[in-house]
Parts: sequence; C-alpha cells; structure tokens
Amino acid sequence: MAVRSRLNNYSMTDSTLLNNEKINNEKSVNGSVSMIPLGGLGEFGMNMMVYETENDLIVIDTGFMLPNSDMPGVDLIFPDIHYLIERQEKIRGILLTHGHEDHIGALAYVLRQLDVPVYGTQLTLAIASGRLREYGVLGKAQLKTTAPGDTVELGDFTAEFIHVTHSIPDSVAIALRTPIGVIVHTGDFKFDMTPIDGKLSDVQTLARLGSEGVLMLASDSTNAERPGQTPSERSIYDTIDHIFQRTEQKLFLCTFSSSLHRIQQFIDLANVHRRLVAVSGRSLINNVRTASELGYLHLNPDHLIDARDAAMFQPHEVVILSTGSQGEPRSALALMALDNHPFLKVEPGDTVVISARIIPGNEKAIGNVRNHLLRRGAKIYHERNADVHVSGHGSSEDLKLMLNLLQPKFFLPVHGEYQNLVRHAELAESVGIPRDNIKVAEDGELIHLTPETCEVFGREGRSGRVLVDGKPEIELEDIVLRDRIQLSEEGILVPIIVLHSDTPTGTNEEGNAENLPTDGDADNTKTALNAGQIEIISRGFVYMDKSEELIEKAKEITRSVIENLSDEQKHETEIVQDEIRGALRRFFSKQMQRTPLIFPVVMRV
Amino acid sequence: MAVRSRLNNYSMTDSTLLNNEKINNEKSVNGSVSMIPLGGLGEFGMNMMVYETENDLIVIDTGFMLPNSDMPGVDLIFPDIHYLIERQEKIRGILLTHGHEDHIGALAYVLRQLDVPVYGTQLTLAIASGRLREYGVLGKAQLKTTAPGDTVELGDFTAEFIHVTHSIPDSVAIALRTPIGVIVHTGDFKFDMTPIDGKLSDVQTLARLGSEGVLMLASDSTNAERPGQTPSERSIYDTIDHIFQRTEQKLFLCTFSSSLHRIQQFIDLANVHRRLVAVSGRSLINNVRTASELGYLHLNPDHLIDARDAAMFQPHEVVILSTGSQGEPRSALALMALDNHPFLKVEPGDTVVISARIIPGNEKAIGNVRNHLLRRGAKIYHERNADVHVSGHGSSEDLKLMLNLLQPKFFLPVHGEYQNLVRHAELAESVGIPRDNIKVAEDGELIHLTPETCEVFGREGRSGRVLVDGKPEIELEDIVLRDRIQLSEEGILVPIIVLHSDTPTGTNEEGNAENLPTDGDADNTKTALNAGQIEIISRGFVYMDKSEELIEKAKEITRSVIENLSDEQKHETEIVQDEIRGALRRFFSKQMQRTPLIFPVVMRV
Repeated sequence: MAVRSRLNNYSMTDSTLLNNEKINNEKSVNGSVSMIPLGGLGEFGMNMMVYETENDLIVIDTGFMLPNSDMPGVDLIFPDIHYLIERQEKIRGILLTHGHEDHIGALAYVLRQLDVPVYGTQLTLAIASGRLREYGVLGKAQLKTTAPGDTVELGDFTAEFIHVTHSIPDSVAIALRTPIGVIVHTGDFKFDMTPIDGKLSDVQTLARLGSEGVLMLASDSTNAERPGQTPSERSIYDTIDHIFQRTEQKLFLCTFSSSLHRIQQFIDLANVHRRLVAVSGRSLINNVRTASELGYLHLNPDHLIDARDAAMFQPHEVVILSTGSQGEPRSALALMALDNHPFLKVEPGDTVVISARIIPGNEKAIGNVRNHLLRRGAKIYHERNADVHVSGHGSSEDLKLMLNLLQPKFFLPVHGEYQNLVRHAELAESVGIPRDNIKVAEDGELIHLTPETCEVFGREGRSGRVLVDGKPEIELEDIVLRDRIQLSEEGILVPIIVLHSDTPTGTNEEGNAENLPTDGDADNTKTALNAGQIEIISRGFVYMDKSEELIEKAKEITRSVIENLSDEQKHETEIVQDEIRGALRRFFSKQMQRTPLIFPVVMRV
Repeated sequence: MAVRSRLNNYSMTDSTLLNNEKINNEKSVNGSVSMIPLGGLGEFGMNMMVYETENDLIVIDTGFMLPNSDMPGVDLIFPDIHYLIERQEKIRGILLTHGHEDHIGALAYVLRQLDVPVYGTQLTLAIASGRLREYGVLGKAQLKTTAPGDTVELGDFTAEFIHVTHSIPDSVAIALRTPIGVIVHTGDFKFDMTPIDGKLSDVQTLARLGSEGVLMLASDSTNAERPGQTPSERSIYDTIDHIFQRTEQKLFLCTFSSSLHRIQQFIDLANVHRRLVAVSGRSLINNVRTASELGYLHLNPDHLIDARDAAMFQPHEVVILSTGSQGEPRSALALMALDNHPFLKVEPGDTVVISARIIPGNEKAIGNVRNHLLRRGAKIYHERNADVHVSGHGSSEDLKLMLNLLQPKFFLPVHGEYQNLVRHAELAESVGIPRDNIKVAEDGELIHLTPETCEVFGREGRSGRVLVDGKPEIELEDIVLRDRIQLSEEGILVPIIVLHSDTPTGTNEEGNAENLPTDGDADNTKTALNAGQIEIISRGFVYMDKSEELIEKAKEITRSVIENLSDEQKHETEIVQDEIRGALRRFFSKQMQRTPLIFPVVMRV
C-alpha cells in the first residue's frame, strides 16, 4: 500500500494531487505515460498535446485558434499553458508537426513564458520564425531543425519524425519511443499518392512500426465524417487549368497562405498560360518568400510582379494570388468585393476562384463576399460549384489505412470537435480496435497509459482557453466576454445622479438634522440628501437623438425613485442603485419589452 | 413629347419623381406593370413582391427574416413597407402562396398599418391567423380563403391559385392576368412526383398557361445552385424507418414546425413502431393542432401524449417531436443538449434525428448542439450523415422544368441571395430564354414591364429592412445596431466628472475672476471650475474587479486633463469630453492596444 503511505504526507482534500500521486505511484511500479491534451480535442484549432513520464515532459504542437462570431472582439485564442509553467523543469522540448497556425500559432506565446528547445522540420521552423521575430522571442528561441527520418532523444522519449503528406510541405507524424512502448502522434495528414512535391507519406516506416507493435495512436480526426479517400492535391490541377483557359480578363486565385502545394500549382499554371503573378496579403507574401528561398516553392522571380503594379498590365496578362478565402472583412478579397481595395479591382469579366474549404462559422461571411463579387460582374468558382479545392486531411478510408498500418493497441482520436472524435472512434472500432481500447477524451482530461491499460481521468482545471484581445499578453476574462455579448444583445444605460447634501456646514438648515432619530453610529449619514442633476448615457439600446421623450421620462422616474427614498436609504449607494435599476427595468420592459444593462452611478456632493 | 410636357410641371431635381413620371407616362401609352420586390431578392427570407399598374396594386407574400449573429439582439426583420403605406388606396389585396414564416411572418406587421384583404388557401390562412391573433389584428383582418384553382378579381389583376408541392401542404403558385399579359409568380415549389398528401403540382394548368403565352415568370431560386432534381419528400421514409428499428431507447425527431409532410411521416412511423408521440415546442404544438383540425395532418389523438408525461413511459414507448433544428439556444433540443430542459432528458442509447436543412449562419450553433448531445451518449443522425432530410425547394432540373412548362418571354429569379439569383438566371439562359430577357434585380429596384420590354430601374429608397427588438412596433435603428456591434467588440468606458464651481456667490474668492480677460460674452463662464469626484464605469473592456490599478490610473489621467484646461475650456462640455476621450484613448491604446468606446459625462455643481 505504497500509494496510501505516500499520500498520507499530503492533504487528502486536494483531489488533483490525489490523482497525480496515484498515477505517479503506478508509474513507478509499472512505468506509464500520461497524455494531457491542452487543446484541439473538442474544437478545431489550438492543437497542443502533452506527453509526460515521471521524469520528462514533451509537447507536440502549439497552435492557436481563431474566434467565432460568438466571441466579439477576440483576436486569437491560445491554450492555457499553466500546466506547462508548473512543470517547466521537466519539459524536454516542443515538437512541431507542420507549419499551420493551428499547430504553431501559439509558439511565440509559449516561448515568452517557457525557455525550452523547439524541434521541427526546416520549413515549419522557418514559418514559425516569422511570428517569433514579430513578437521579439526569435533571439532567445532554441530552434532545432529536424528532418523527416531524424530521431531526437528527449529524456524518456525518443522522437522519430516521419514524413506525411498534407497541404503544406515538410509535414511529419511523430513516433515516440517511451519506456512502455511506442506512441504515434500523426499530426495532420492524408495519403496523397501523387503529391505535388513528389514526397510520399512514409508508409514504410509506419508499417514497420505497426509490425514492431504500437501501444497508442493519436490520429487526426478533422475529416473523420467524410466517406472515402481524400483525393490527391493534384486532382484540382485540371479544373484550375480549364478556368485559366476560360478567363479572358483578370484571374484572382484565393487560398490559405500556408497552402503551398496549392500555390505551387497556381504558379505553374500561370506560367503555362503566360500570366504574371501578383501576390497580395502579408502572410501570403511572407510564405511565398520563405518557401521559395528554402526551395519548397519553385518560382521564376521574373514572373512575379508587385500587386500594386497589376493594374499596369492587360487584365489577361496577370493572375492575382490572394488570401481572404474565409470572407475575413479586412482581407484583400473582401475589400475588393466592396470596391474598397486601394489598388486591386474586380471588374465584369474577371474570374475569382476561392480554392479553400469553408471553416464552419464562416459561411455567412463567405456568402456575402461571393454576392458582392457577383454584383461587380465577376464569375466565381468555389468548393460548392467546381472541383477547385481538395482537403489536406485524410477522410475515413485514409484514417482506416493509418489505423491498419499501425495496428495500435490503444487509440485516441485528436484534432476535432467532439462529433469528429466520436466518428473517428467508430472508424477505429470498424477496423477491429476493441471498443474498450478506444478513448474519446477532451482538453484537460488526462489519458493515463501503461503497457496494459489506458484510462481517462476527468477534468481538473488543467486546461482552458486564453482569449486575447489587443496586445498578445492581455487576456480577456470570460466575464468581460459575457458582458460584451450581453451589451450587444441589450445595450447599456447609465443613469448618473448627483446627490446634494442639504445641510452644508454653515447654512441655516442644519437644525433639520436634529429632527432625525439619532442612534449612535451616525457620522453624517443622517444628513438629508436631494437629487440634483440627473444624466442618462445609453448606447446600443435606443437611438438617443430620437428618444428624447423616453430618456426624459426615465430621468423623471429616477428622480422620483430618489425622492421616495428615506434619507437613510439615500446614504446607501447600493440601495439607491438597486431601486433605480429596478424602476427603470420595469419602465423599459413595459414600454418596449426590452431591458438594457443598467448601471446607475451616484455622485455625492 | 408628352413625357417632357408633363414633367415640366415638376421639379427636375427629384429623380424619383422623374422616373415615376416617365414610367406612368409610358404606361398610359402602352399599358405596363411594375414589379417592386420589397424583400426576398438579395436575401433568404422576408419575401414580398409588389405588382402594380396605374390603377391597382397587389402584394404577393409578406414574410419575415430571422437575423444572423451579426445582428445582436435583433428578434425579427421585416421588409420596410413605406412604399405600400404611401399607396394604400391602390392596394387591392395581399396574396399568400403558403404558410411558411418567410412568406407570412410579416402579415401582422403589415395589417397593423394597412387595411387590405388577404387571400390564401385554407391552411395558409389558418397558420397566419395564429400570429394575427397574438398581435391583436385577427379581428379586423379580412381573410379570404381561396382554394387552388380559384380565381380572384383584383382590379387590373385576375389572380389564379395553382397548386404546387412544397414542404407544407396547400402551397400555390399564382398566375396574374394583367392588361399586358400573364405573369406567373411561383412561390416556393418542387415537382414532387409522389407527394405525401397525394396532391401533385398542377402541371396541367402550368402547361396550359405556357401554351397560351406567359409574359413574365418570377420563380423561386432557393436551390438554383443544386444540380439535379430534388427527391420526393417520401424518399426519407425508409431512412427514418430504419432509425426507428435500430433505436432501443427514446427517439427524438427534430424538424421545422411547419414541415407538415415530414411530421405526417414521423407520426405514421411512430404508429407503425407502436410508439406514442409527444410534441414539444409551442409552434409545433400549434401547427399540429391546426393542421389536424383542418384535415391536413392525420393523427390518432389516442397516440398523442403530453411531452411532460414522456418520462412516465418506457424509453422505447415514445417518440418526441421537437423544434430546435437550427441550434436555437432556447429551443427544446438545445436545452436538452445541455441537460437544462425542465422535463425532457437525453440519455445514453437515445437517438436524435435532426431532419432539417442547416440555414447558412447556423452551422456553428448546430454543431455545438450535436457535440453536447454526443457527450450525453446519444446517437445522432443529420443531413450530413444520413438521408434524413430532403428539401422542399426545386433544384436545377425542377427549375428548368418550370421554365419549360411556362416558356415565359421575360424571367426574374426571386427568393435568394444574389448568388442564387445569378445561378437561376444562368439556368434560364440554358433553356433558351434570351439573355436580355432575363433580369437579375434586388430589393427596392423597379422592374418595369410592357408587352415588349422589361427594364430594371435603380434603387430609390423604396425598400429596406426593419429590425425589430422587443415589442413588434419598436424598430431598432441602424445606428443602435452599429453601436451594439462596436460595444461587443471593444466594450464601453464612461468616465464621470463632477466639476465644482470654485466661486459660489458670497465667497471671498470672487476677486479672482477679475484677473481673467473679459470679452463681453461672459455671463458666469469665467468662473473657475475644479474637478471634484471622478468615477469610471466600464463593461466589456476589462474586468473591473481585477483592474483597479488601470482604472485608478485612468482617473488620474482624467483629473490631470481637467487641471490642464483653462477655465474657459472647462466651461465647454464638448471640449472637456474630447480632451478626456483623447487622453484615455491614447492611454489604453498604449497600455493594451485596445480602445473601448469612451463617453465622458460632465456634471456641474
């Protein structure tokens, strides 16, 4: 009963400690690895997984997530990394699977708080460096380039980088050799049989690992709900080629700035059709520069023009690569759609290709951009009316192939909303993984792995989301976000009341105070108070300029509330506020069936 | 030059008048009909089309639209009906095509402002009556039941109701015989060859009209972007049947409350599988009652139970029909998903079928509901993983069939976002309508039709949207909505400053005033003012309880701004406000790279 004897040294009320102790103890007996997803299990984005033994801890990926419209004013969402900060001395490294923001976007945020080495492939680290430089942490960052096939020793973990195909070059899965067996973490992948760069997923290594025995597979669930196999990136080439042929005016090609295989095809086709290439959008320009410097993108600099010069050429002589595929309001595409772009213009006869998936939640924004582009006379091709996009993530059959290559004992679906994880779990069961060996877990849970067992322990406040608005270090509290949502639904009304003391020293009215009962605790709380000036500020509730009558009536109500309070009540700010709030709420509710947020302010003079 | 001579009587600067005069004049020569879409052309929802001759005006449909997440706090959106109010004496009637809210939902709003007869089929008027009663206009409403096949004389217009299949029974297209020819307005339709109620689209009448000659077709564009033909409503029966067979626990079936053919199938299958039917959701209960009273829904009252009693039965003995297919946060389904429903509970082994399309913009909300249902252990079927839904709107081939049956001279796509209208126009061209005879127009434009011509005149402020928040008559101004969005993105900060006059009458400091320059316009504006109490209220910006230091610093800045103002400046409220706003904006922007909305309030004592 070693567990108990060790625990006796600690307070038993700390359940976190209890669990950790229990787990640590089991580890010391059997050897074990804990997996703690800090992000990406239960949402798309902010992928971050901790692998931990008694002695050592490594992190795979440090991604961010972009907010939805239900998070107004939020710029970015990072995983909460308190779990890492508390264990800083155990961390042997961060391993990156590829250069997409949902896998590397939080790296600067993490490296500002932790001083640990970062391992990734050449392109991944090059893309990550851009943001590190921007946030001033590139200098101190320990970036260690690791090629596919390389192996890194990290304490109890030996990590092997295994090349996989994805929408960005130089993507890897990671095999972790641990004291209790091999764990494979796929990163994002598909099995593209004809990849643009000719580099296949390394099925040989995956198959060898499968033969040797894999204890645990953590695999990408993004497209688990899609049947079949994801087509090759190359499959869109012919469609885009036809669009080039049919377009007599300007051609706009929009995709994610990180979809470098897609961008390579666009550049190749521009060359075939003798159009010059203009690149618009900062992230796109940066990625094209980085990738071509490193040889991941092949492009003749003579065929590149500055987007500002595009208008100097005949429309049929140029193709414009741009971002904005998600309808982002400040993107080049959205600006062009509304004729607000400083130097790019969509005109009748132009063609726009939106070569990207629609991220759920962005449908309306993208629809609006499409409508506006059509109003300007453009022809539009997108995912839903032409084969202009193919996913970088494996569909059901790719996922089954990964499972069958590795034949893991235990399986944990990662990367996706709960519904995607559940679907991936069903796929794993369909290829023969025993149901009890498949775990569906979410951020902040702890998956405890031994050579024989895999258990999930509940949430213990280890994880969370950090909402960022403004400077990267400024976190937005949940309560502020709730206020924002409420403000946006109801508006705000601030009544401001000046309370005058009737009995300033030296006036002839001080005798009145004597009429009030005196009960000992009175300093000047028995002084009579009268309402002076009353102002009302409101936003998001009614249009003030057209609602003078309503606001005047609200002022009258406020004044009469105060007049009906006893002098004692008037001295209690909270009572004054509550009474005003209640009276105004009743008034607006009756008048308009609406109640703004009401925050009375009492100023005493 | 009759045009010119008549126009000389009017100001030439009024372009609206110019156009109307020009049009009226042409009418008197050739005869003409104007079509003015007040809603539904450029968006999904709030369908409303005006048909107008020199003497008479009719309206087809009076729909509302539900807001998206970019309109926080907005409950409903109605078309602006000023165009109708200004022409009240010409209006001969409102014609309704079917009982969906996007076609009848604004009827109460319209009838509160206009006293005109309303024509519709029995079920359509019965459903519309519910809302009219709710808003107290049922008593005065002139509702005239019109069966498919009936003809109504409305001044220059003779309207014929033609049965079409749609997701709600008793739907019609409307053929208008006008002095210049026949206009057909389809309403929503598909060509269902095996409709649930056995009532086919009246292709015979449509074909006859086509043979006789149709001048203009205005046809539903909702599914113009979908290839092929929309399957029969009946096609989902087998899928739902299989789900009934496979479900051992409770079965939840969610659809729109107006999808009565769907509900009929659910009820029939419940009967086959010997489950009792519980109905949850007010609109669903109302529609089921109305439709079964009128014989549009066949159901044995003995098989109905109160949803509150569902828990008294074994899980396999009940099926629960509910709304909430769009993830609406207050719907039964969303409440169940979060375990917040007062008496319905989703448990492991239960099955939920979401048998409805996803309205664009609702993807995220629906996804959240699905995730939560899965977390409770439910099995879920929806449009994307099973054939549990089929549209009530015709796809490309249905739309082409309608075009080919009617062979109109002119064509106007209606009902849809701009991209759907454009696609429908392409379909019309593909079946041989000359491109010049196809018009893509949007709300508020005027389509002017003569026997030989069809012209679109630009926007002239004839249309718009009325955003409703609270009582139906309370319109939300655009500026208030903009404020709400800004509040939600930035938060609000209200600094309140009390300015004390230093020189009350009778004090010994009045001599100071003499040192100030006097320039004649001084009453007491030269009195010295000093900042007294300063308070700051903020919401949606920072968490006040944790930001005391920041707020204290902001107060200090406010105080020092005032102290640095001259006494003259202090007397100008706007100057004080501007200076404080500017200083705080610079402060927060530097500190946090964020700036809330800042509304300083100056109180003088």
